[in-house]
Amino acid sequence: MSGDQGGDDRLREFTHFRQRMNERILAEPNQVVRRFFALDTQTYQDGALDVKTKELLGLVASLVLRCDDCISYHVAQCKEAGASRAELFETFSVGLVVGGSIVIPHLRRAVDFLDRLEGGEGAAPAAQHDHG
Amino acid sequence: MSGDQGGDDRLREFTHFRQRMNERILAEPNQVVRRFFALDTQTYQDGALDVKTKELLGLVASLVLRCDDCISYHVAQCKEAGASRAELFETFSVGLVVGGSIVIPHLRRAVDFLDRLEGGEGAAPAAQHDHG
Amino acid sequence: MSGDQGGDDRLREFTHFRQRMNERILAEPNQVVRRFFALDTQTYQDGALDVKTKELLGLVASLVLRCDDCISYHVAQCKEAGASRAELFETFSVGLVVGGSIVIPHLRRAVDFLDRLEGGEGAAPAAQHDHG
Amino acid sequence: MSGDQGGDDRLREFTHFRQRMNERILAEPNQVVRRFFALDTQTYQDGALDVKTKELLGLVASLVLRCDDCISYHVAQCKEAGASRAELFETFSVGLVVGGSIVIPHLRRAVDFLDRLEGGEGAAPAAQHDHG
Amino acid sequence: MSGDQGGDDRLREFTHFRQRMNERILAEPNQVVRRFFALDTQTYQDGALDVKTKELLGLVASLVLRCDDCISYHVAQCKEAGASRAELFETFSVGLVVGGSIVIPHLRRAVDFLDRLEGGEGAAPAAQHDHG
Amino acid sequence: MSGDQGGDDRLREFTHFRQRMNERILAEPNQVVRRFFALDTQTYQDGALDVKTKELLGLVASLVLRCDDCISYHVAQCKEAGASRAELFETFSVGLVVGGSIVIPHLRRAVDFLDRLEGGEGAAPAAQHDHG
Repeated sequence: MSGDQGGDDRLREFTHFRQRMNERILAEPNQVVRRFFALDTQTYQDGALDVKTKELLGLVASLVLRCDDCISYHVAQCKEAGASRAELFETFSVGLVVGGSIVIPHLRRAVDFLDRLEGGEGAAPAAQHDHG
Repeated sequence: MSGDQGGDDRLREFTHFRQRMNERILAEPNQVVRRFFALDTQTYQDGALDVKTKELLGLVASLVLRCDDCISYHVAQCKEAGASRAELFETFSVGLVVGGSIVIPHLRRAVDFLDRLEGGEGAAPAAQHDHG
Repeated sequence: MSGDQGGDDRLREFTHFRQRMNERILAEPNQVVRRFFALDTQTYQDGALDVKTKELLGLVASLVLRCDDCISYHVAQCKEAGASRAELFETFSVGLVVGGSIVIPHLRRAVDFLDRLEGGEGAAPAAQHDHG
Repeated sequence: MSGDQGGDDRLREFTHFRQRMNERILAEPNQVVRRFFALDTQTYQDGALDVKTKELLGLVASLVLRCDDCISYHVAQCKEAGASRAELFETFSVGLVVGGSIVIPHLRRAVDFLDRLEGGEGAAPAAQHDHG
Repeated sequence: MSGDQGGDDRLREFTHFRQRMNERILAEPNQVVRRFFALDTQTYQDGALDVKTKELLGLVASLVLRCDDCISYHVAQCKEAGASRAELFETFSVGLVVGGSIVIPHLRRAVDFLDRLEGGEGAAPAAQHDHG
Repeated sequence: MSGDQGGDDRLREFTHFRQRMNERILAEPNQVVRRFFALDTQTYQDGALDVKTKELLGLVASLVLRCDDCISYHVAQCKEAGASRAELFETFSVGLVVGGSIVIPHLRRAVDFLDRLEGGEGAAPAAQHDHG
């Protein structure tokens, strides 16, 4: 029952928390963790597939694995990369059919997040890759 | 650390959020998503198995997949369909043994939710199927 | 690409393997593992819910968690407890809708297994609970 | 230890099994299951996103959920829709980074399957959508 | 978007909720559930492997299964059993590489929880095993 | 119904397949995939935790995520690093209790694999890290 309906304050708080903890984690002398974060960033860079397609791939993977933070993050990145609402909903539909009705609560929160982004009230998408 | 211990206000807020977002999603011109929602409703209708048994099946599936919103939803539907507390706990026990101790935090929130329903303070179960 | 289409020899081989390994595991001086196996057996015994309903619960949990051995096991136990083909298919439908299209390959193998059981060629269901 | 290294006979056997069981399932008088199969087909049709992108989405979802049959199926569909080897490997890389090293055994089997398809020895991709 | 950034009040609230619901569950006349809880406690006792190693095993299992409550619980138990910050980060690194980037949001919350424990502000670890 | 009971020929075939496909994958010009494989190797190196403990962590993570190839791989690495049968069974017990009865079929195959390794008939553990 985590409705994420708390609004923009909660969104800002989350964005701040993500940033602060990423810095904290990367400051730690653990090379495997740091390299993983670097690799994660590299994964979504332009290549044979463009950034938009890669972010849609990241989004559908996050949907079927049902991780709200990752879903919100990739929705924002997809928008930033130019994905339309119709493209996002088709991506949602693949996630829903592959992953089943268990995805529905995450879909509700994803659409709520998307609505806010489109309403101009949402979190500014991270300026650079920010690890889901 | 999402204890769901926030009480009835939070419950009402969640019920409202679910309803609002379902309407938002169904208003979208994406036929796959809309058909999935219709199919989800059809799944739990009376057939060779009665509604109560089907809702218990939905509950145990939600437990082992560890989706709090889905668990709460099916607990309410099971109660509505006449399941007793003992039947619900036997369903919980199957979910716990099949899914393991990772299910325990979700079980705590499920029992808390059930206690509220039985205390008469809970969310009124949705009048019709409302997509987990 | 594990089609389980190898037929009855493979079924007998699997039943024999399961039995042999269960004995091997229970002979090990690890009390937690042994108690878990005992608890697993106890879970499906007649109680507030009857054995058939509990086995259907075990089946749907196995479907959404996508474990072929567990699915076959519970299909056999459900048949043994008197579940009809229509009841099994309604249980399959709940697993399919909750778990999504990723369940389909397991559903194919489940139906193949069920067809064999009904054709009288299948594995004799275990005489007692035999741990999925 | 299911290496899928058995080669083309096994591939043909699997394709035949999939087809036979799909027919068997669709012949069953269970409307929810049949509608789910129809919806699954509809999901990958050309829309705001083209077929190739949708099949790549289906592939990455199958990778992170670790379903070999689904992975093989979507690899074949992606090839059929014109995806290049480089595009497939970038999709694999997203699946690997999002899903972790647990995906590696499935990646090995996916690449083996792709090698066969490209060697012209593989299964002919299904003429129409064939449910993972 | 459940940042768990609410601080120590939320931590105390959660610890209280966990304790209260565990008592509630164990008071229920369902022997399977009660035995499962007893077995869960037994699992982490000193044996061929010491308590610290077993708690690290519990932690990495919770990480890859992505259960925040279980992660927090095992982080506290690991600290109590003498695990150093470096040992915890190496355990995190195994969880991250095996489980993939989908683990990152849980890692952020785990490190935040660890920081609080080390700052002396955290929840007192449960005096005895307290079921994840 | 993949019993892995096929014996040593199958084991050798699998080891050969794993090696061949790893080489094939690493020969591909995809830097993200190659770096992931390098990072995977680095993860299990001696550090604050010794190799044996890290391999036990890899084993329990593989158990709860239910990947047979990964389980076999880590069982072999654990043996190589000096883990005793009792230590392996305690690791199995944590995986079983955290992951639930759905783990049992994988446990059977893990014990069968361990028996072969101890009988001297098993696959020689990979000389170097070989990616699960």
